[in-house]
Amino acid sequence: MDKVFVTGVAGFIGSNLADRLLAEGKTVVGWDNFSTGQQEFLQAAQNNPKFKLVVGDCLDLSALTQAMAGCDFVFHLAANADVRFGLDHPHKDFQQNATATFNVLEAMRANRIKGIAFSSTGSVYGESEIIPTPENAPFPVQTSLYGASKLAGEGFIHAYCEGYGLEGYIFRFVSILGERYTHGHVLDFYKQLVARPDLLKILGDGTQKKSYLYIGDCLNAMLQVVAQGTAQRAGHRVETYNLGTDEYVQVNDSVRFICQALDLKPKLEYSGGNKGWVGDNPFIFLDTKKIRATGWETTLTIEQSVVRTLQWLQQNPWVLQRR
Amino acid sequence: MDKVFVTGVAGFIGSNLADRLLAEGKTVVGWDNFSTGQQEFLQAAQNNPKFKLVVGDCLDLSALTQAMAGCDFVFHLAANADVRFGLDHPHKDFQQNATATFNVLEAMRANRIKGIAFSSTGSVYGESEIIPTPENAPFPVQTSLYGASKLAGEGFIHAYCEGYGLEGYIFRFVSILGERYTHGHVLDFYKQLVARPDLLKILGDGTQKKSYLYIGDCLNAMLQVVAQGTAQRAGHRVETYNLGTDEYVQVNDSVRFICQALDLKPKLEYSGGNKGWVGDNPFIFLDTKKIRATGWETTLTIEQSVVRTLQWLQQNPWVLQRR
Repeated sequence: MDKVFVTGVAGFIGSNLADRLLAEGKTVVGWDNFSTGQQEFLQAAQNNPKFKLVVGDCLDLSALTQAMAGCDFVFHLAANADVRFGLDHPHKDFQQNATATFNVLEAMRANRIKGIAFSSTGSVYGESEIIPTPENAPFPVQTSLYGASKLAGEGFIHAYCEGYGLEGYIFRFVSILGERYTHGHVLDFYKQLVARPDLLKILGDGTQKKSYLYIGDCLNAMLQVVAQGTAQRAGHRVETYNLGTDEYVQVNDSVRFICQALDLKPKLEYSGGNKGWVGDNPFIFLDTKKIRATGWETTLTIEQSVVRTLQWLQQNPWVLQRR
Repeated sequence: MDKVFVTGVAGFIGSNLADRLLAEGKTVVGWDNFSTGQQEFLQAAQNNPKFKLVVGDCLDLSALTQAMAGCDFVFHLAANADVRFGLDHPHKDFQQNATATFNVLEAMRANRIKGIAFSSTGSVYGESEIIPTPENAPFPVQTSLYGASKLAGEGFIHAYCEGYGLEGYIFRFVSILGERYTHGHVLDFYKQLVARPDLLKILGDGTQKKSYLYIGDCLNAMLQVVAQGTAQRAGHRVETYNLGTDEYVQVNDSVRFICQALDLKPKLEYSGGNKGWVGDNPFIFLDTKKIRATGWETTLTIEQSVVRTLQWLQQNPWVLQRR
């Protein structure tokens, strides 16, 4: 892995990954359509001569194929990550997650690139009956368009790896926190409290259990697994890893972490019910034995990750103005 | 279910289904792009005033949406069923199976149609370690583009049923035999023997185990489950059923059935290996307890199905000339 192609490079995870790869001395070609990516996240990378940014959309297969030329590994992180409003525009999940992944695979095939890492999601397990949920849980039932579209991406990665001899790494993430975090409940809560420090509106009843992982730990896991080449070592075409912490919190815990860190005592107003929205999973908690068996471990707890996220948001108030 | 939309209506399964639905007094709107469908299969249907054929491709969402207007249930059978050559043109599986299914769901949503039955495949289990393979087998690894693209379709059906309140039935087929069978090993072997009765070339070593189901039994299962409304009864949005016999045969058995039925003793020439082609599954055998629990049972054995298929091929020599 010398020249790495990163889709979604201007996003939360992509931009952090690019910085890490550049720090390791790799050449990075970054690809983003800036639908949700932020130019600000690439300031450090763009000062590095080993970084090249190509603006484009994964739906444009010919531009994608051209941009990928000469690369030897792909981190495919571009996605429609707007999980919550999937039902308002189902074509977004289909195109930006399913079709985009198919196009990435086609562009790789045209360029004879043999390795891919893919950011999937714990949502592919739907509402699993087995918790914590291991990678080989029973055949899942999709409860969200986001999960369905990521599952579609996973399936095509498998078929391409089997059929065309690629090596694939699929990472099923819980929600990620940390520097450059730009959507999710910590931002929603922080925004509310900046606007009105005495009131916090909470979707659901606050008892929804959630699992989070710090971006630095997420990148450690991905980079380590790819460097180890665990698929090849195991004689597999594809290896799939859950990425998460072995703890979880309730939304109410998270509210407490945030209020403590900000030194606020707002009135809490709950919308009620045990789901935040249709397709929201009341409890997503992944079994992470497999990734831990590679020697990986987390460096921050969920509470520490929430605090780190808040610190970054406080240092980057411009984020609150962005979509 | 009064006015039924059938995609892939000119295909093997679709045309047989249309005849059955018409015999039950339903109104049928049939949809086909005739990429592999046969006008001949619709001769009976087209003499029925309750049948309407619309020629179109599932990739044309606006035409599809228009054609579906007024229907109250959809059997989505249109697919790229060219499993074997998937690796030669991966976009076919993606477009005709994944995108097509997404478009069918979007057209249903636009027309407020609340029920769908989908022809999936036992290939979604990849090379399962559990045989016979139940519906809730461990999270599958896709070994073919066909399986991956059908899995994508399944996932979106789940997400639409959950998110938009549809009722869905997913049927994972083994290979289907019987009247109007137009591709697969029985046709390949029959074609060879018509051209040259003294030699039969067999992919693999002949020990590949395969499971088959008679088209009449396949239709009985689908129609019965939909009529029973098993999903609603169970309080589920989607029910998934394996459809197959509880027996399997080796390719060599099938060769024997065919040679006996045709009264031929050709020299057998094997290409060797235990797989017919990359992505071919050496053993696909589904656990059918769930569909049997609905009261359904098979009427023909695999041997009887092979013989029935041969009889139909002998009565319809024009099929040998078609792609």
